[in-house]
Amino acid sequence: MQRDVCTEPVLNSRGPGAAAITMAPGAGKGILARLDAGEVVIGDGGFVFALEKRGYVKAGPWTPEAAAEHPEAVRQLHREFLRAGSDVMQTFTFYASDDKLENRGHTQRFTGQQINEAACDLAREVADEGGALVAGGVSQTPAYLSCKSEDDVKAIFKKQIDVFVQKNVDFLIAEYFEHVEEAEWAVQVLKSTGKPVAATLCIGPEGDLNGVRPGDCAVRLVKAGAHVVGVNCHFDPETCVKTVKMMKEAVEKAGLKAHYMSQPLAYHTPDCNCQGFIDLPEFPFGLEPRVLTRWDMQKYAREAYKAGIRYIGGCCGFEAYHVRALAEELAPERGGLPAGSEKHGTWGAGLEMHTKPWVRARARRDYWENLKPASGRPLCPSMATPDAWGVTKGHADLMQQKEATSQDQLKALFDKANKNQ
Amino acid sequence: MQRDVCTEPVLNSRGPGAAAITMAPGAGKGILARLDAGEVVIGDGGFVFALEKRGYVKAGPWTPEAAAEHPEAVRQLHREFLRAGSDVMQTFTFYASDDKLENRGHTQRFTGQQINEAACDLAREVADEGGALVAGGVSQTPAYLSCKSEDDVKAIFKKQIDVFVQKNVDFLIAEYFEHVEEAEWAVQVLKSTGKPVAATLCIGPEGDLNGVRPGDCAVRLVKAGAHVVGVNCHFDPETCVKTVKMMKEAVEKAGLKAHYMSQPLAYHTPDCNCQGFIDLPEFPFGLEPRVLTRWDMQKYAREAYKAGIRYIGGCCGFEAYHVRALAEELAPERGGLPAGSEKHGTWGAGLEMHTKPWVRARARRDYWENLKPASGRPLCPSMATPDAWGVTKGHADLMQQKEATSQDQLKALFDKANKNQ
Amino acid sequence: MQRDVCTEPVLNSRGPGAAAITMAPGAGKGILARLDAGEVVIGDGGFVFALEKRGYVKAGPWTPEAAAEHPEAVRQLHREFLRAGSDVMQTFTFYASDDKLENRGHTQRFTGQQINEAACDLAREVADEGGALVAGGVSQTPAYLSCKSEDDVKAIFKKQIDVFVQKNVDFLIAEYFEHVEEAEWAVQVLKSTGKPVAATLCIGPEGDLNGVRPGDCAVRLVKAGAHVVGVNCHFDPETCVKTVKMMKEAVEKAGLKAHYMSQPLAYHTPDCNCQGFIDLPEFPFGLEPRVLTRWDMQKYAREAYKAGIRYIGGCCGFEAYHVRALAEELAPERGGLPAGSEKHGTWGAGLEMHTKPWVRARARRDYWENLKPASGRPLCPSMATPDAWGVTKGHADLMQQKEATSQDQLKALFDKANKNQ
Amino acid sequence: MQRDVCTEPVLNSRGPGAAAITMAPGAGKGILARLDAGEVVIGDGGFVFALEKRGYVKAGPWTPEAAAEHPEAVRQLHREFLRAGSDVMQTFTFYASDDKLENRGHTQRFTGQQINEAACDLAREVADEGGALVAGGVSQTPAYLSCKSEDDVKAIFKKQIDVFVQKNVDFLIAEYFEHVEEAEWAVQVLKSTGKPVAATLCIGPEGDLNGVRPGDCAVRLVKAGAHVVGVNCHFDPETCVKTVKMMKEAVEKAGLKAHYMSQPLAYHTPDCNCQGFIDLPEFPFGLEPRVLTRWDMQKYAREAYKAGIRYIGGCCGFEAYHVRALAEELAPERGGLPAGSEKHGTWGAGLEMHTKPWVRARARRDYWENLKPASGRPLCPSMATPDAWGVTKGHADLMQQKEATSQDQLKALFDKANKNQ
Repeated sequence: MQRDVCTEPVLNSRGPGAAAITMAPGAGKGILARLDAGEVVIGDGGFVFALEKRGYVKAGPWTPEAAAEHPEAVRQLHREFLRAGSDVMQTFTFYASDDKLENRGHTQRFTGQQINEAACDLAREVADEGGALVAGGVSQTPAYLSCKSEDDVKAIFKKQIDVFVQKNVDFLIAEYFEHVEEAEWAVQVLKSTGKPVAATLCIGPEGDLNGVRPGDCAVRLVKAGAHVVGVNCHFDPETCVKTVKMMKEAVEKAGLKAHYMSQPLAYHTPDCNCQGFIDLPEFPFGLEPRVLTRWDMQKYAREAYKAGIRYIGGCCGFEAYHVRALAEELAPERGGLPAGSEKHGTWGAGLEMHTKPWVRARARRDYWENLKPASGRPLCPSMATPDAWGVTKGHADLMQQKEATSQDQLKALFDKANKNQ
Repeated sequence: MQRDVCTEPVLNSRGPGAAAITMAPGAGKGILARLDAGEVVIGDGGFVFALEKRGYVKAGPWTPEAAAEHPEAVRQLHREFLRAGSDVMQTFTFYASDDKLENRGHTQRFTGQQINEAACDLAREVADEGGALVAGGVSQTPAYLSCKSEDDVKAIFKKQIDVFVQKNVDFLIAEYFEHVEEAEWAVQVLKSTGKPVAATLCIGPEGDLNGVRPGDCAVRLVKAGAHVVGVNCHFDPETCVKTVKMMKEAVEKAGLKAHYMSQPLAYHTPDCNCQGFIDLPEFPFGLEPRVLTRWDMQKYAREAYKAGIRYIGGCCGFEAYHVRALAEELAPERGGLPAGSEKHGTWGAGLEMHTKPWVRARARRDYWENLKPASGRPLCPSMATPDAWGVTKGHADLMQQKEATSQDQLKALFDKANKNQ
Repeated sequence: MQRDVCTEPVLNSRGPGAAAITMAPGAGKGILARLDAGEVVIGDGGFVFALEKRGYVKAGPWTPEAAAEHPEAVRQLHREFLRAGSDVMQTFTFYASDDKLENRGHTQRFTGQQINEAACDLAREVADEGGALVAGGVSQTPAYLSCKSEDDVKAIFKKQIDVFVQKNVDFLIAEYFEHVEEAEWAVQVLKSTGKPVAATLCIGPEGDLNGVRPGDCAVRLVKAGAHVVGVNCHFDPETCVKTVKMMKEAVEKAGLKAHYMSQPLAYHTPDCNCQGFIDLPEFPFGLEPRVLTRWDMQKYAREAYKAGIRYIGGCCGFEAYHVRALAEELAPERGGLPAGSEKHGTWGAGLEMHTKPWVRARARRDYWENLKPASGRPLCPSMATPDAWGVTKGHADLMQQKEATSQDQLKALFDKANKNQ
Repeated sequence: MQRDVCTEPVLNSRGPGAAAITMAPGAGKGILARLDAGEVVIGDGGFVFALEKRGYVKAGPWTPEAAAEHPEAVRQLHREFLRAGSDVMQTFTFYASDDKLENRGHTQRFTGQQINEAACDLAREVADEGGALVAGGVSQTPAYLSCKSEDDVKAIFKKQIDVFVQKNVDFLIAEYFEHVEEAEWAVQVLKSTGKPVAATLCIGPEGDLNGVRPGDCAVRLVKAGAHVVGVNCHFDPETCVKTVKMMKEAVEKAGLKAHYMSQPLAYHTPDCNCQGFIDLPEFPFGLEPRVLTRWDMQKYAREAYKAGIRYIGGCCGFEAYHVRALAEELAPERGGLPAGSEKHGTWGAGLEMHTKPWVRARARRDYWENLKPASGRPLCPSMATPDAWGVTKGHADLMQQKEATSQDQLKALFDKANKNQ
């Protein structure tokens, strides 16, 4: 494969005088100004999975009470992404709607408002350390899955938005929607604030869970008022770039104008069906072997860039070094490296100082670019068969309840799962 | 496979009243008192790899200047391990000897002493938040590989120890030694402080790089004065437990008495030769697919416990959730769960609250215990062929130099590596 | 997966009196009579690959001179397929056109006519031993790839057909065509004999090498006069069944009527592009790990049957036990087992007599049906990246020449291949 | 890896005048004369597995009645091996002792004597076509596993030998013994005929099923009178060569003299325990992905030769092209190529005549030597966990019975197997 970046001048500029290491190249400008100017905007990574591993988020409920409960942990993660080159600090408010918090059995030590406010303050504090922007985010709601009305669902978004407006975030993101209809509703609410709006679905090339194709989804989101459209979560970078390409083609064919973004998983998911990594048997506690390397990330950044995507970030599984890899791959286009690159030699150059000579011999681009990393798991396969229950909005199995699943309900599920295997 | 723990009473005790979640069960007692009493001591994880991914350590030099440079990042990582159940905070002083810092091209913004002092302060600060112990650590030196004299090498250890004594750490660890001879020297220096001494080699069943068998190594370390012996780094948990078993048998056969510890990698390494993961082609930037899951860790904790190992920790690749898995597996023996378990349902129980019913169906032990996680990488193999240059202490290729490797030297290495492929 | 065959009566009928073992259930009836009656017709396997392994065919030229040169080897292979349940003996005349024989450097010890005659005699001799039919086959020509005229290409087919008519084969097959246009020409020539005509392309779901979709291909072949249409070679059974389904849908939608056949590879090819297994790096000397098991074959037979395919056979890689597996899976529909089943217990039942008890424990259907067989090759991946030179009919690289490729030409090819890697 | 054979002169000699293609270089000389002269003797491949696939042997009983029942099939297989370069035709008499035939439920259409006689005649007929030797073989007996006396067991061997003597085979092989004691008994009986005796155990580096190490086994066999010692079946070539090396070292250390032979599986078995491939979950109906390529075989031939093994053959899984690969790799040492090489270009040279240019680009040694063939099975692992029931001679589970296993016995086995998984 031919790669056409990382030209010599940039690499050389990382010598003794670290002049080329700059932060947040677009500092001072808003998201649309940056994108309109053709700049690359590097997003951040997924907080939920990173903080789960660190011990601050519970898998299952996936709620963001840590923003209020353990602010030092959330602040530190923001800082790592900032240092890695993120131009945007997303508020850690995933699933922070009251209905979700309540529904997921959260013990209500904090209200949704408290969590959302704390998350805004943390994002702003760190963003200001490096000229980054703050984005407030809303996601799909249990209310929608349970077939509540448009008004009910919009009221939930409105409640979250009020905090973002009060805290004066720089722009808004509607993300992680499996049904374009709910995303349209979110965009309409977000749009009413007058702030720039980005909207991403968690879908792949097959489209949303009602079968609406990616191109049609994108057109609908742009028409609803989104300035930036794309996908996030649920699929690996390769799949996400492919999906956004389909969106871009359709939007352009419709004579509309938009910017494009992708915030994929940091997990390889070649075996996914339309529901994405949720359906993989490894979700969420056995995904380790699928984690992308930094070199996989550089490839992603390049492919996304070539596809015309300019807002390039990540979601679940991303850690700071993944984001830094995006920033390093696109250093020529961005005019410099992120702060965190002071601790990373491009394409493994830092290994020139390794104790063992055969490790020093790995300090070269073609070595890492061509490596096919072994899993170390000879008893494991390379692909899995995803679950495929084939239910979505409106199905009884998806009606959300406040209570934890009962033992009887669980037993019924185990039986159903065993039968499907 | 039969697993015999996590009895019902313990699991049930994690209900509404989180009474069973306790921290640092041995609080107030020293390391030897704990081990003598038969308690399980949970170690922490590797700082170098974790902080490399977060952007604070440079792969290649691998030096710990972050303790002085970015204390907030180091403090946060300590806190995560403490929360996960670690009973010991190891000072982040790996490779913090002056010869190493100088040798690795470190820009000398901080002296070795400054770094060591800062690392001690951070470890103590966090340890005190949860009744943990502080351990000061020394590792193998470039001086030894370059055939410096015993006196020269010991002087280096002495210089590091002085800081540990001044900062009054609770005990000392000599870790990451490839040659038992150098480890003996280190133990002798550490022993002179009067503090308890633990010593771990980074070896597997084939023994140290001079071919000294694990059993003989262990006997020599005990005779040199180590109270706790074992292995750390370089190999996966399965291999490390096997190696410590060989050590324990030999020590007991020699009529000696010791405690045993293992702090393995969090990477599966079934394909390693005697040099461990350094020789794997994926080291250090392509190890992702090899990372152990939390369930792999529970198996490790159980196997280590069965083998009579009571100091059970980790090294490179370990993150907080890996340590928490050790503490959860051994909760019955330890009498409770760590603080971090408030965000983790045992054996996936938290999934009972997941939105999707087929994910709720994964909330059970046999599901996770039997999962063979797919790599998502159909183009990659499951094992690699390790490098095998077969050189060690005294070989010209291993003479350490202050300067970064020159371009000519690198070219010679690349050619040699290509020829060996 | 639910499997709904092999009902008890049939299995039981394989007891002491082997009454259920019958041969060639449709004996005496022609191919169309059998298919019109709804019978399942079992094809045979690929001779070229089987005889290459036995030492009678040379990979590269792939010509069938063995029919004249080593008739005992060809006769034996026919017998194995007959015994395994094949209802059709295809004459071993693949690539037996004079232009191909000459082009492939064949030393001309035998003319095309001699080979074709010998092949017909062998097929008839063995067919008569078991009531099977004889089918004469023609395949794509170098002349077509080199852009010869329709008349020239048809003349080549005509020359082959003359032998088949003279030897009075029971029906004709035009198989292994990459371009539907050439297949239409072949069908037109075959049709002129008044014998039943089957036509199979070596294409997958993406269609022929000019991008004509499978459905359109099938409609064109039926309109050209083929009674049976389908695919053979180039792809695995799963892909072939999928492709024939597309053909059947289009033929029915066009209001036409036909029978359907599939003769896939016995190699798993999930990683193929439109050119099929030719493009896999393992072709033709490293395909071993991809060979289907007999259980894979039973699954294929069932899926093909469910899809409405009634002429079910195989191509390259098939050996007698693969064909027998087809016949065993469809024994209920066919009313009995083939002769070769006297040496095979259904679903591993023969293991009941194995020496080792743990092997006897494998004598059950669910064991073999669920087995995920290991490759024994931890250094190898599960998928490959196919070559993709993207050239077809008319491209200079595909102009066929009589001479062996010259050293200069080979060097140019090696360089091109290395660059593409 | 460096390979040092196939020098130019030999390769060139395969031009138009096929002078270099010769058969059976040692024609006319006995086995010991050939080995004493330092010649390489190429063995044949396993008949049981090859004929099972062709439909003439039933897996489970594994008995050789085909020699009498379907002589044309057995004759053809002999011819393929002869053509491929085999210098020895082993009589197809595996498990042809009366106790085995009776025990395995064989319907007694033929007596052991009839089968053994027919097998001798077939082997001699084909051997005479090409100057090959005929070897009569005996294998382990159910009687031994059931703890019959030395006299009883020896009487069984004697009965088989009588036929071999009467038919005047050239030498005798005692093969496929899991216990060295029974092999010694066999050697003693064979020795009494005055014919040269070879003896191979089906063991790996861990030794026989009583734990007798390979070196000790070899010394005992040589002392019992064997002229040639080694291993056959149960393990892959790599393991077998390693085991024979251990044998050779021990024999030489004991001051004894012998020749060495290996006849391994054609299946990769890196995951086997001491019982070999019998314990793999894929045995015997799912071994396809493990089959060695011809290039793997060339590597085996070279390694065996380097280890001092001069009788180099194969066992289960070997087909003619595998044997030919042995003969081609050792063509320089043997002074020519086998007859079958007229249909095979060395290192893929035949591909120079392939239709597609990118396949022609594979006509080179380094391509095939470095290929890591994909399995095409992304849902399958690369290694399996072998059964490990840990029972051997004398255990109740291994008492052999005449009757087929009863349904009750089977159910008990299934339950035991399920529990062990």
